[in-house]
Amino acid sequence: MPLILTPLANIPLIKPGDDLAAIILSALQKTSLTLEDGDILVLAQKIVSKSEGRLVNLATVTPSARALELAACVEKDPRVVELILRESNEILRYRPGSIIVEHRLGFVCASAGIDHSNVAGEGDAQEEWVLLLPEDPDRSADRIRQGLEAASGARLGVLIIDSHGRAWRLGVVGVAIGISGLPGLVDLRGQPDLMGYKLRITLIGVADELAAAASLVMGQAAEGTPVVHVRGFPYPLRQGSLRELLRPKEGDMFR
Amino acid sequence: MPLILTPLANIPLIKPGDDLAAIILSALQKTSLTLEDGDILVLAQKIVSKSEGRLVNLATVTPSARALELAACVEKDPRVVELILRESNEILRYRPGSIIVEHRLGFVCASAGIDHSNVAGEGDAQEEWVLLLPEDPDRSADRIRQGLEAASGARLGVLIIDSHGRAWRLGVVGVAIGISGLPGLVDLRGQPDLMGYKLRITLIGVADELAAAASLVMGQAAEGTPVVHVRGFPYPLRQGSLRELLRPKEGDMFR
Repeated sequence: MPLILTPLANIPLIKPGDDLAAIILSALQKTSLTLEDGDILVLAQKIVSKSEGRLVNLATVTPSARALELAACVEKDPRVVELILRESNEILRYRPGSIIVEHRLGFVCASAGIDHSNVAGEGDAQEEWVLLLPEDPDRSADRIRQGLEAASGARLGVLIIDSHGRAWRLGVVGVAIGISGLPGLVDLRGQPDLMGYKLRITLIGVADELAAAASLVMGQAAEGTPVVHVRGFPYPLRQGSLRELLRPKEGDMFR
Repeated sequence: MPLILTPLANIPLIKPGDDLAAIILSALQKTSLTLEDGDILVLAQKIVSKSEGRLVNLATVTPSARALELAACVEKDPRVVELILRESNEILRYRPGSIIVEHRLGFVCASAGIDHSNVAGEGDAQEEWVLLLPEDPDRSADRIRQGLEAASGARLGVLIIDSHGRAWRLGVVGVAIGISGLPGLVDLRGQPDLMGYKLRITLIGVADELAAAASLVMGQAAEGTPVVHVRGFPYPLRQGSLRELLRPKEGDMFR
């Protein structure tokens, strides 16, 4: 069966308080797509964060001494650095232009996922607002899935994604930051391969693979579409979580 | 436009000397799929390596003193460790069960991509053969693309993928190791986002995103399919290379 990823047109600019499930259902009605058992909706982090009011007016942020010091090293706005510190468990590396952290949600990323772009503020001071990641993206995904399932009667998955850099490769790729109703990892341990050997690779990051696929069709620029409908996900749906994908610290050779 | 990834059934077990373009064309004829301008074929590294005869009989490998020493630390077959050393520019980390290297092709991966599974040997000694990565996967992809384009008249892309682990996340994901006729990276520098700001994220690892998507539909186990037909890749095709995706050492904060 093919895997089919369809970006949804007709998603309006999202505002705090918006009901994303209702907006997605409305956008789907303008297409020939339906919601069937096994379908997955992939959402860009940005619209989930906005709907949850995770905008911060930088004028309200007072940088700590530590933020001022770090901001001088990395040549960033001290108020943004203050928010990065608040959103992080640990700073792993920094250099001019770049701060790599363990986010409070457990994953490693740049700038704690704090986003300057596509953020609309109030009145004239647009540049003064930034967007934090959702408080609890797994729970955000659960809530959106419940809304979509209640309306459709279908058994669905919802995936919230962001774009992360990689340690040794250039370019960002889509990764999962919130998961509901689909596996994060699939464990093939003990299954035979084509020659009857036991598989060498046993854990597949299927939610991250789907995140990358959906990110490809979302695009990043002006014409970007923040919701993708997926049909043909090749593994059985089950409840999943971002936590499946986080490498425990004791297994980390590169921190 | 949707992105559609279709795994090709009817790919036989590949042997050294096999013509992959001809095999793919033959498999396509048993489907309703055609080759049209802009289509991309994604191939698992394993079949490319096999077709190029990159099988090594471990009985022919004499481990060096360094390989014997490292093998004792990582608890692996010294002959496999010898091959890992030969295929690598540098060992980055090791511990029991795991050797992380910079492959001679420039990317960071475990065990230099050397694969025990799905490797058919000669006669009774199947376990004694391993499979190395292609000598030059970009060139392999070029050759396969030329074969497919000559037969179809269509302007195509060919992507060769492997599965890599990540520094901070569990589970492997598909990544590009050979690219022909499609971009490795897409640079959105200077393009405005939805609010008219300049984009914060400018380099997208599109070949890796497509690799992850194709890996998802290939699967890893007995029923795996090593070739995926892709329609609807959302960026213009151009000549590309694995080298676009390699982070220069001087920019690496985690080595």
